[in-house]
Amino acid sequence: MAEVAPKIKEASRRADARLAGRATPFIFNCWYVAGFAWEFARDLKARTILGRPLVFYRTSAGDPVALSDRCVHRSFPLSKSQLDGDSIVCGYHGLRYDSGGACIEAPAVGECPRGIGVRSYPLRQQGPLVWIWMGDAAPADELPTGSWVADEQWPASQQYYHLPASYVALHENLLDLTHLSFLHAHSFGTPDYAAAPYAVDLDEDAGRFALTRSVVPTRLPPVWAEPTGLTGKDAARVTTSEFLGPSTHVVSAQFYGLDVAEAERGRTGIRTAHLPTPETATSTHYFIHHGRNFAQDDPSVTDFMQEQLTVAFTEDVVGLTEIERMIAETPEDDRYEISLASDRPGLAMRRWIYRTAMEEGEGAG
Amino acid sequence: MAEVAPKIKEASRRADARLAGRATPFIFNCWYVAGFAWEFARDLKARTILGRPLVFYRTSAGDPVALSDRCVHRSFPLSKSQLDGDSIVCGYHGLRYDSGGACIEAPAVGECPRGIGVRSYPLRQQGPLVWIWMGDAAPADELPTGSWVADEQWPASQQYYHLPASYVALHENLLDLTHLSFLHAHSFGTPDYAAAPYAVDLDEDAGRFALTRSVVPTRLPPVWAEPTGLTGKDAARVTTSEFLGPSTHVVSAQFYGLDVAEAERGRTGIRTAHLPTPETATSTHYFIHHGRNFAQDDPSVTDFMQEQLTVAFTEDVVGLTEIERMIAETPEDDRYEISLASDRPGLAMRRWIYRTAMEEGEGAG
Amino acid sequence: MAEVAPKIKEASRRADARLAGRATPFIFNCWYVAGFAWEFARDLKARTILGRPLVFYRTSAGDPVALSDRCVHRSFPLSKSQLDGDSIVCGYHGLRYDSGGACIEAPAVGECPRGIGVRSYPLRQQGPLVWIWMGDAAPADELPTGSWVADEQWPASQQYYHLPASYVALHENLLDLTHLSFLHAHSFGTPDYAAAPYAVDLDEDAGRFALTRSVVPTRLPPVWAEPTGLTGKDAARVTTSEFLGPSTHVVSAQFYGLDVAEAERGRTGIRTAHLPTPETATSTHYFIHHGRNFAQDDPSVTDFMQEQLTVAFTEDVVGLTEIERMIAETPEDDRYEISLASDRPGLAMRRWIYRTAMEEGEGAG
Repeated sequence: MAEVAPKIKEASRRADARLAGRATPFIFNCWYVAGFAWEFARDLKARTILGRPLVFYRTSAGDPVALSDRCVHRSFPLSKSQLDGDSIVCGYHGLRYDSGGACIEAPAVGECPRGIGVRSYPLRQQGPLVWIWMGDAAPADELPTGSWVADEQWPASQQYYHLPASYVALHENLLDLTHLSFLHAHSFGTPDYAAAPYAVDLDEDAGRFALTRSVVPTRLPPVWAEPTGLTGKDAARVTTSEFLGPSTHVVSAQFYGLDVAEAERGRTGIRTAHLPTPETATSTHYFIHHGRNFAQDDPSVTDFMQEQLTVAFTEDVVGLTEIERMIAETPEDDRYEISLASDRPGLAMRRWIYRTAMEEGEGAG
Repeated sequence: MAEVAPKIKEASRRADARLAGRATPFIFNCWYVAGFAWEFARDLKARTILGRPLVFYRTSAGDPVALSDRCVHRSFPLSKSQLDGDSIVCGYHGLRYDSGGACIEAPAVGECPRGIGVRSYPLRQQGPLVWIWMGDAAPADELPTGSWVADEQWPASQQYYHLPASYVALHENLLDLTHLSFLHAHSFGTPDYAAAPYAVDLDEDAGRFALTRSVVPTRLPPVWAEPTGLTGKDAARVTTSEFLGPSTHVVSAQFYGLDVAEAERGRTGIRTAHLPTPETATSTHYFIHHGRNFAQDDPSVTDFMQEQLTVAFTEDVVGLTEIERMIAETPEDDRYEISLASDRPGLAMRRWIYRTAMEEGEGAG
Repeated sequence: MAEVAPKIKEASRRADARLAGRATPFIFNCWYVAGFAWEFARDLKARTILGRPLVFYRTSAGDPVALSDRCVHRSFPLSKSQLDGDSIVCGYHGLRYDSGGACIEAPAVGECPRGIGVRSYPLRQQGPLVWIWMGDAAPADELPTGSWVADEQWPASQQYYHLPASYVALHENLLDLTHLSFLHAHSFGTPDYAAAPYAVDLDEDAGRFALTRSVVPTRLPPVWAEPTGLTGKDAARVTTSEFLGPSTHVVSAQFYGLDVAEAERGRTGIRTAHLPTPETATSTHYFIHHGRNFAQDDPSVTDFMQEQLTVAFTEDVVGLTEIERMIAETPEDDRYEISLASDRPGLAMRRWIYRTAMEEGEGAG
């Protein structure tokens, strides 16, 4: 009968009401990753983003296009239709939509009615990533990650998971380094990690939440030790995890031997962009872009890190899937969460998502 | 951003409110096809019609019987029970129901309580079709198709699809010839079909909606050209599509060479009865009866047409399935439909179904 | 049109409103079987009981433990975590819960916040059964079955079914011997069974409902005839079915040749404890403990009866599954039940469950 006291439960419920969760509307005015560049080609591809079914293709000039997948006439999926030149011909009645979504032909009636079309969504390609803007506001000038993701000095590999869990839970996972020693005990967590001090940098006005943990000295797990040549040596592991918006979280880490001069320390770093794009309230397209700024010409390093990281990222995906299932199976009256001091960055982030989503909703209404 | 203007969306939503769709109640006072004659025999068969689980069988005299499938005692399915002579003995407690649905034996209590039974539904057999009347009103005297479906001069083949889509969408598909050149581009649509003029005959009082399209001259697709000997010849293709009620749509077509005298032209025709029986709001038993009035003694013609038509009808089934899925995946606020002038027959039919269903509901209340 | 008259339907609906069914809340203040003793060991096992996901294990001393499966921090399932000594270490952030459910370690924050924990549930082992108390009231002193289930004079076998049906329907099935000749026509029902008189003993205050049926003389079905040596002989079959609470129903039967003196008649009996534990409103963990007080040292008798009974119990499971499906498929307005005089014990039991559940709910409120 060690259950949480009713008073504490009550307080947790009150706090939850202002935290983003499964019931919080999506934030639309944001660049999200729609997919990897090579996923979009001269054929039609369906993908649901922020609850909206979309169709993607590239024009003959190579420009990526995203349109609402539903023909406005009788709801036939355009993704099951014909790409003809740069336009889509609906598979049901032949309505033709150009790459801007305008309906330009309606064979059944001769002349196409004016002002008819499907919504098109702005896309922007950045190296291997294609970003989409789903919102009503004008697209932001800058993409969330910064330019390194398209920089040759940062060779990278990519990965995709279909995650049957809320994107908010994934962000909270990323903004929390205290789970490494447990969920990742057998991959890249090391026992000294959970106990190490960390610095937080939370800016609720700007919506930037970061935490930095320096583990010095430490012994690196194989995923970092092997490619950096630090196996069996005392080393430093300095990691920054930074939430840059609903679609983007970047983990940067530097590793160096303790004998390395300060000016040289930035030479061996990795950056992992975790790029969750909500599909539905409880499922997420989880894109990952993992780069490094060393051994740029050695593809075996790329392969080794990809292989090692896959183990760890899969642990997150499995864990978040289990949590989503547990929440779904738990009776409503038992779904409170007790937060710890270590959750402060995640809670600040969730408050920000909640507030931003609510404000955006009011703006629309 | 080529999306439909808010004003047009708003108008389409207003129109939708008076059109039959997934949310419209079924029309019960109508003959629907319950199944093909050979499906009902001296065993018990379950089928759900208009949302009601039913059990079917034939008496020893060969008469088809339809009863509510739920034993009124403890809800055991009668279709999982025993047919004993002309009555069903419930598999749970042995309640015996006669072919009229009356409970005539209750072994657990000796004498059967009076006034207990399951609802029985009038059936009528017409050639290969067995019709059912689900409504509270007295059954209509006439069956919807007319007598040709049981006429030896119209040899026919039959087909069944379990269609995971609304029966209304199927009716709209049938009352629309403009999709042939697209959905059926590779089967029986021909490019000149979409552009050909058509005549409409819409009687919203009687609930009869027809359209006729004459394509003269044309080259027939193989399904019609081969059995009529018109391959490679200039021919006429005159097609009438007629909605005869919620359960029935008949497509009649005549094909003849341009050198054939007017009096002779009716000699080479086909009639296809499309017989959708709603199972649930979003699933339909789709029965098809396809007949012709030529080459009556040549079963190879039956086989050839059946084979060819299967391709085309499967295209409709796949297309309507895709639409139903797309509607289910589309957020509520995005489910409007933009109609074209060519949709006029379908819209008139949907207004009629909506009004008729609403009036029937009020009558029941 | 033999349907039940509207007046009778209306009366049945009024009666239904006070009978336990799928919508009735669970009774929590009761011992339920959580599982068989051998199911709980030095590993973590998940099982949902009364709608609550639980985790089970045994301490190093062998004591069984039941805790809420959801870590109160971020809802990770403890059943997917680590058992470490006698405590569970959450697989996500390492929160450690002792066997009483108290959180005793939270590595991420150093000192564990006070007053945090998951609910633990009292368990009690009785021979091969492990019972759980889910309620808020103090656990009852006595377990529902009586001590014979752990008595060596009653050698027994056990069985488990995951039953996709309401536990109330199972209880009603058990308190009704009139279905034996039908649902079990080919296993242990005999034709004379349905017609035999029975005595009922219904105590709605105490919540004990029993019925006794003596079939004398009769020929026993093989399951009873073979192990008792009564094959082909005139015998007596005296069966008592007794509801002892939401979790427990015991069927006792005596079999004896008609030439056996009265004092000797208790020597050949069986007792079957049917132990339904609700998982959800429409699914049940159905545990069975089947014992006998004869041929105690002959394991072939155990095997023979187990094999024979499996056939019959599976018939119940299949039948109740069919009923649950039929109810789910029946439109709301058609879900009434017509009861017979023979349903009196079941109805008394369902009234009692309904009243007890409602009173418990008010007590909690």
